[in-house]
Amino acid sequence: MSGDSSIPFSALGARLRPPTVAALMAAALADPKILSLAAGFTDTSTLPLREVGRAVADLEARSGLPEHLQYGSNLGRPKLRELLAARTAALDGLAPGAVDAGRTLIANGSQQILQLAVQVLCDPGDIVLVEQPTYFVFLEILAGQGVRAVPLPVDVDGSYDAPAIQSLIGKLRQTGDVQRVKALYLQGYFANPSGQSRTEVEKNGLAALLSEAGLVLPIIEDAAYRDLWFDSPWPARSVLALDAWQGFPRLYLGTLTKPFASGLRVGYGHATDAAWFDRLCWLKGHADFGTANFNQALFESVIASGALDAHLARVRPVYGRKMRRLDAALRTAGLPDLGWSWTVPAGGLTFWLRGPAGLDDSDNGPLWRAALDEGVLYVPGGLSLAERRGHATVRLSFGVLDGDLLDEAARRFVRAAARVGTPPVARS
Amino acid sequence: MSGDSSIPFSALGARLRPPTVAALMAAALADPKILSLAAGFTDTSTLPLREVGRAVADLEARSGLPEHLQYGSNLGRPKLRELLAARTAALDGLAPGAVDAGRTLIANGSQQILQLAVQVLCDPGDIVLVEQPTYFVFLEILAGQGVRAVPLPVDVDGSYDAPAIQSLIGKLRQTGDVQRVKALYLQGYFANPSGQSRTEVEKNGLAALLSEAGLVLPIIEDAAYRDLWFDSPWPARSVLALDAWQGFPRLYLGTLTKPFASGLRVGYGHATDAAWFDRLCWLKGHADFGTANFNQALFESVIASGALDAHLARVRPVYGRKMRRLDAALRTAGLPDLGWSWTVPAGGLTFWLRGPAGLDDSDNGPLWRAALDEGVLYVPGGLSLAERRGHATVRLSFGVLDGDLLDEAARRFVRAAARVGTPPVARS
Repeated sequence: MSGDSSIPFSALGARLRPPTVAALMAAALADPKILSLAAGFTDTSTLPLREVGRAVADLEARSGLPEHLQYGSNLGRPKLRELLAARTAALDGLAPGAVDAGRTLIANGSQQILQLAVQVLCDPGDIVLVEQPTYFVFLEILAGQGVRAVPLPVDVDGSYDAPAIQSLIGKLRQTGDVQRVKALYLQGYFANPSGQSRTEVEKNGLAALLSEAGLVLPIIEDAAYRDLWFDSPWPARSVLALDAWQGFPRLYLGTLTKPFASGLRVGYGHATDAAWFDRLCWLKGHADFGTANFNQALFESVIASGALDAHLARVRPVYGRKMRRLDAALRTAGLPDLGWSWTVPAGGLTFWLRGPAGLDDSDNGPLWRAALDEGVLYVPGGLSLAERRGHATVRLSFGVLDGDLLDEAARRFVRAAARVGTPPVARS
Repeated sequence: MSGDSSIPFSALGARLRPPTVAALMAAALADPKILSLAAGFTDTSTLPLREVGRAVADLEARSGLPEHLQYGSNLGRPKLRELLAARTAALDGLAPGAVDAGRTLIANGSQQILQLAVQVLCDPGDIVLVEQPTYFVFLEILAGQGVRAVPLPVDVDGSYDAPAIQSLIGKLRQTGDVQRVKALYLQGYFANPSGQSRTEVEKNGLAALLSEAGLVLPIIEDAAYRDLWFDSPWPARSVLALDAWQGFPRLYLGTLTKPFASGLRVGYGHATDAAWFDRLCWLKGHADFGTANFNQALFESVIASGALDAHLARVRPVYGRKMRRLDAALRTAGLPDLGWSWTVPAGGLTFWLRGPAGLDDSDNGPLWRAALDEGVLYVPGGLSLAERRGHATVRLSFGVLDGDLLDEAARRFVRAAARVGTPPVARS
C-alpha cells in the first residue's frame, strides 16, 4: 500500500487547504493537560442519553416493519419535514403551513446545505457577501470553491453601516464585480463567533438598501443558534417572514442536533425558490441521496414526544450559567485591565473578544504560543474574517468546559494575554 | 414566501438535472398497487431492529460521559477506522495493519466519498473510465460535474477486452484526450447493476495493460456489495492487495450499512495516496466535518460484539433465496422465450437482463409504459451506460420484495415484455 504519486488534482482539489483550526488543535490536543475554549462543541454533561435511548426504544416497539432502518428518501422523511416547517413557522409567528414542507430539505447538519448552496450558486471568482466576523467554516467553503468573501461594512458596535454598504455596492458596480455577487450570508441569531443578533429594523434596513441598489440576490440566513438563547428568544423574525425580504430568493438553515445531541447530525433548510431548492436536492442526491433515515426517525419521535423542547428548556440555563461563569472568570482574572473588551452574548456558544489594538493574533503568533504554553486553546479571530487575518480578536467558546475547569481555562487565557501584553502600537 | 426568481446558477448548478430514476419512480409510486423491482433498497423484514436496540442500550449503559452524542471528528472515530482497516485487510488476506487506519475515512455512505473523489480529481471536460454497465448514480455525479464517462470495452460476457482497451487508449493518446483521463472506476464485487465480479487475472491484466500504456491513474474500487455474497465470498483480492496495482494511487470504498441497516448511512474509504486522502478529508470538512458520531459509535459496538457478522450470516441466504426465486419466476413466466437472457449473480442485489436486440428500453419508452400499465417498476438499463441510452437492457432488484409479491412482480414484468414483444430489428 505505498503508491504516493503526484496526482493532477482538479482546480478545486488544488485549491483545498487543511482546515487551519484543525491543524492547530491537532497539534495542541496532543497534550491532555490543555484546556480548550476553542471547539464549538456542545455541553457533554447534559447530552440527552436517556431521551435518545427512549426514542430508539419507541422506534423498536412500533408494530410493523422497521422502515427507519431502511434507506429513506433524498429530501428526508415527509413527517419530519412537516414538523420542521411547522416549527419554523411558529418561531416566525407565521400560520402553520406558511413555511413550505415541500421546500424543506433534511441534511447531515445545516453545514451540508451551506456547502450545497455555495456549489450551486457560485463559480470560482464569484463573490459572496458576508458579515464581519462570520462563521469560519463558511469562509473555508468559499475559499475551497475559489469564491471571494466580501464583508458587509459594520459600525463599531457590529450594526450594518448603511452608507458604507451603499458605497461598497457602488464600488462593486463601478468595477463590474456586482455581476459576480451571487449570495449574501447572514446569521441573524447569536452569530458564531460574534454572539450578535439582528433586529428586524436592521434586517429590514438591509433588505431595503439591497433592493434600492437593485441587488436582489439569494439570501442564506443561517439560524443554527436560534434555539440556544439564555433568557428569552431573540424577538426578530427571520428573512422567511419579514415583508422587506419577500422579493429575494431565501434559504433558511436550522439544526436539530446542536441544541440536542450534535452526534446525531441532522440539519435542515427551507428554500423559497423552487429552482434553487431543486438544485440543492439534486446535488445532495449525488452526495448521499438522503441523510440517515434512522436519525431522522429518531428526531420525529423526539419532537413529537416533546423531548426536544424539554431538553432545550433544560440546557438553555446551563449555557447561560456557563456563559456568565466564563464572563466573570475573565473579569476576575483582569482581562479588561489588559485592554480587552467584549459584549456579553444573549445566546449561542461563543464570546468574541477584542484585544488591544495592534495585538498580533495570527495563527501560531505570540498570543497563540503563550496560550499553548499556559495550556489553553482558543480560535484566532482572523479565521472568522474575510481577510483571514487578525484584527486583534479571539473567539472563546463555553460549550464544553464547565465549573472549575472553565475558571481555570479563563485564568490561563488571561495569563497568556498578560504575557503578550499591550503592544507598542496601542500605547502610542 | 413567494419569490421565485431567475437565479444565475453556477456552471455546476446549471448542469444539474433531476435524477432520472427518481422522477420516474415518484410518478409511478403514486399508485400503491405498483410493485417495485427498481429500487436498490435492502430487505426490510431482516433489518436488525433488536441488534440496533442492543447497541444503543450498550452505548447508554457505558459509564462516563455520552461522548457518542457529541460532535466527532472529520475523519471518523479512531476505533471504527481501525476496525474497518483490519476488516478490509482480513478480506484481502493481508496482515493486520496492512490497510492503513490513518488513511481510512468514514463517510455518510460510501456514496459521499465517490462524490468527494470526483470533485478533487476532475474538472469539467475531464474523463473518467468506467465499466459498462456501471453504477448509475456515479454516472449522474460525473454528469453533474461536467465529466465525461468513457466505458472500458468489454467482451460479450462482460470481461475486459484487452485489445479494444489498448485501442481506446491509443485513440485517447492521438486526440490528446489521455491528458484528461483522471480516474478509473471499478466495481470488483457483484457490481451494480451487472452482478459481475472480477477475477484476479482480469484485474491484474487490466493493471498491466494500463501500466504498459503509461496510464498510471487514480483507481476507485467500489466494493459496496463485497459482503453480500450468497454462497461464498468472491475470492479475488481488491486493488489494495494485488501487486499489479501497487504503482497506482487507489481508493477502496466499502459500506457498513447496505449489508446491515441502510438507514444508518455509514460508509468508508481506504486511500493509498496521502495527498488524495487529505483532499478527500478537507472537502468532507466543508460538507459536514464528520459523519454522525452516534452512528459510528453504534457500529463500533455492532462490529465488536459480533452482531454485524452474525447479521451478515443471516441475510446472505435470504438474498440468495430471493435471487433464486426471482430467477425462477422470470423463467417460469417465460421471459427467455421472449428473447431475454441474463446471468445468475453470485451476490449483490440485482439482475442485469438483456432484451431482444432493437428493444426500445428508453426512459418512458414502450417497455416502461407497458410495465407501469402492468404495475411493476424496473430501472431502464440505459441509466447505467455511459451513453445513457439503451442497449435493450434492464436492471431488476430483488432487494425489497419477497415471496408471492416477488413472483407477482416477475409475472408482471414478463407480461410487459410480452406486450412489447420482439421488435422487428431482432426478427430480421
